[in-house]
Amino acid sequence: MIYLDSAASHPLLPEVKVALIDAFDNCYANSASGHLLGEVALKKVDEVREEFADIIGAYPSEIIFTSGATESNNIAFKSLLLNSSHPKEKNHIVISAIEHKCIFAICEYMKLQGFEISIVMPNGEGIIDPKSIKEAIRPSTALVSVMHVNNELGTINPITEIGQICFENKVLFHSDAAQSFGKTEIDVDDMNLDIMSFSGHKIGGPKGIGAVYIRDLRKRNVQPVIHGAGQEQGVRGGTVAAPLVLGFGEAINSFLQSYKNLAKRQIRNYLLEQLVQAGISFTVNGNEEALPHIVSLTLPKTNIGVLVRDNEDTFCLAQGSACSSREIEASHVLTALGLSREEAEHTFRISFTNQITTKEIDQLVNAIKKAAI
Amino acid sequence: MIYLDSAASHPLLPEVKVALIDAFDNCYANSASGHLLGEVALKKVDEVREEFADIIGAYPSEIIFTSGATESNNIAFKSLLLNSSHPKEKNHIVISAIEHKCIFAICEYMKLQGFEISIVMPNGEGIIDPKSIKEAIRPSTALVSVMHVNNELGTINPITEIGQICFENKVLFHSDAAQSFGKTEIDVDDMNLDIMSFSGHKIGGPKGIGAVYIRDLRKRNVQPVIHGAGQEQGVRGGTVAAPLVLGFGEAINSFLQSYKNLAKRQIRNYLLEQLVQAGISFTVNGNEEALPHIVSLTLPKTNIGVLVRDNEDTFCLAQGSACSSREIEASHVLTALGLSREEAEHTFRISFTNQITTKEIDQLVNAIKKAAI
Repeated sequence: MIYLDSAASHPLLPEVKVALIDAFDNCYANSASGHLLGEVALKKVDEVREEFADIIGAYPSEIIFTSGATESNNIAFKSLLLNSSHPKEKNHIVISAIEHKCIFAICEYMKLQGFEISIVMPNGEGIIDPKSIKEAIRPSTALVSVMHVNNELGTINPITEIGQICFENKVLFHSDAAQSFGKTEIDVDDMNLDIMSFSGHKIGGPKGIGAVYIRDLRKRNVQPVIHGAGQEQGVRGGTVAAPLVLGFGEAINSFLQSYKNLAKRQIRNYLLEQLVQAGISFTVNGNEEALPHIVSLTLPKTNIGVLVRDNEDTFCLAQGSACSSREIEASHVLTALGLSREEAEHTFRISFTNQITTKEIDQLVNAIKKAAI
Repeated sequence: MIYLDSAASHPLLPEVKVALIDAFDNCYANSASGHLLGEVALKKVDEVREEFADIIGAYPSEIIFTSGATESNNIAFKSLLLNSSHPKEKNHIVISAIEHKCIFAICEYMKLQGFEISIVMPNGEGIIDPKSIKEAIRPSTALVSVMHVNNELGTINPITEIGQICFENKVLFHSDAAQSFGKTEIDVDDMNLDIMSFSGHKIGGPKGIGAVYIRDLRKRNVQPVIHGAGQEQGVRGGTVAAPLVLGFGEAINSFLQSYKNLAKRQIRNYLLEQLVQAGISFTVNGNEEALPHIVSLTLPKTNIGVLVRDNEDTFCLAQGSACSSREIEASHVLTALGLSREEAEHTFRISFTNQITTKEIDQLVNAIKKAAI
């Protein structure tokens, strides 16, 4: 089956599968156990932690493994703002209108805890302008949260510039890097990041593992989201899922080069050219500098329902993002871009695996042509 | 290597490994995605949910998959007591003194939220007497939490009787079943349970997956611990780790019979007999009815440090429980039983895999003999 997923997720890489099987066999012990097998598991987990920290310019002690980016996002807001040493007067949060849905759910909860939320709109290309963030910051602002790469558009936000503004205003800066890690450069110092969220399965690692970076973790008062028996510096309770961490580590090793190759192949441009040649009416949501594996297409003269239904054995296609694809509601990202409900209904997101071929793109273009209204 | 783990955990079962590899290949899609692969993943996840619910006498809609028992325990306390509809005057919680360490960390947090905690001591055999629970309940009691099987002793608490008392007093009843599920019968109705926590890796499933049962979930106001994009009935955010759920499902299938066989083989008794025959001075902590795969041994005339060090290539041995085995502190469970610090330091927990042989037990007994003081 051709894999054109709407989840902007990547199937498990073959190398990761091998690493996981090996880890399940040889790294099953509890990494908190004092015995030899436990020590081996701990050492391997910490090797991944070091490698990971190195890639994003952090210290290993600033990296906590979690069950995924959603949990990491929860930690970013709750652990740093809902602890006894957080100043009461710092009760304002700035987020963008195109964040992952979980950020909005977290913010509803933060409202119940006495926080005010400001939502910054993107420009017409889906980019969060640093100026808009600057305008939204108040003396009471505690945290700014802007995702690095948008999951529906593939657009890259100017994190370095936003980070600089946060730094100048002494405001904590968090960014959800679920879609960007392994696909575009990250340096937590250059970007002035205080907290960043990561996901394993967006780079071909296993589902159920992620990480969070917290600057100067050891110096902070951090309230755990999951209270436990002291694992992960007391910040994240629960037995560390060592085999999943090792699978995540192998994904980091394997994914980066093959993603670079995808970028070189200009598949995204090829798709757009083929759409033009086939005389299909379309617009691309977002801007030209989007990541090469995500395209958000509005096809006003295509019956999206028919396209999805007739090709369910060939392509993985769905409207909206995966988290909400069973909802009968226009994507909040597309709405924020100014698309009408009708335009949003004629929009779908494609994400390529690194192995996508031009032949598969041709098949997709043909399928779109056939689903003309 | 002989596997005598201190973590009371089980290495991944071979059948589970096969199921996991298959799931990583064929069930990688996001189960929240509307496309065919997503639907397949969702269907398989829900099959495990149904099977799981059936075993414990629950409805599938009452089961939420989590990252493990620690997260489930967090949900039990925070999701049900820290929501807007929880009555303010119900601000008292009863726990036992021999709970898993994470329960104490959660309770410290609950104190910050205005709750009072009563801690009930076990009897000399490590059992929580239902009468002690009855005495601890006040008009303000919101929740009683008593673990089903203790992780250091293997002792089984009288959950049905405690549940009956909670029912009569209209108090929510939670039990951590991380160590009991798959090893002794559970029926949430017979036991009058409102909430129960489960772990995958304690029955040979993968680390990083667990579950929580919440009675009448759909009728309750449940505040998520991890806020997300609506997954798991809005109770637990984050992409469902479908391959891990399927691995958990296979563990449920494979583990139960082989555990029954372990029980029949009376390995625990064999160990105790061999210790007597070898003239080793010992006492067993807990009672006779403990589960057959856990033994807590106090060996007053054995140098535990030497035993652990000299056999690290042969056995997985460690003092205390895995979560805290790097701490220089006597186990809170042993202390609650009335053991002195010195006695606790001469105690270690052994847990058998289902495949343990009498030959391995003989080797262990010899090793203990050699480490005599």
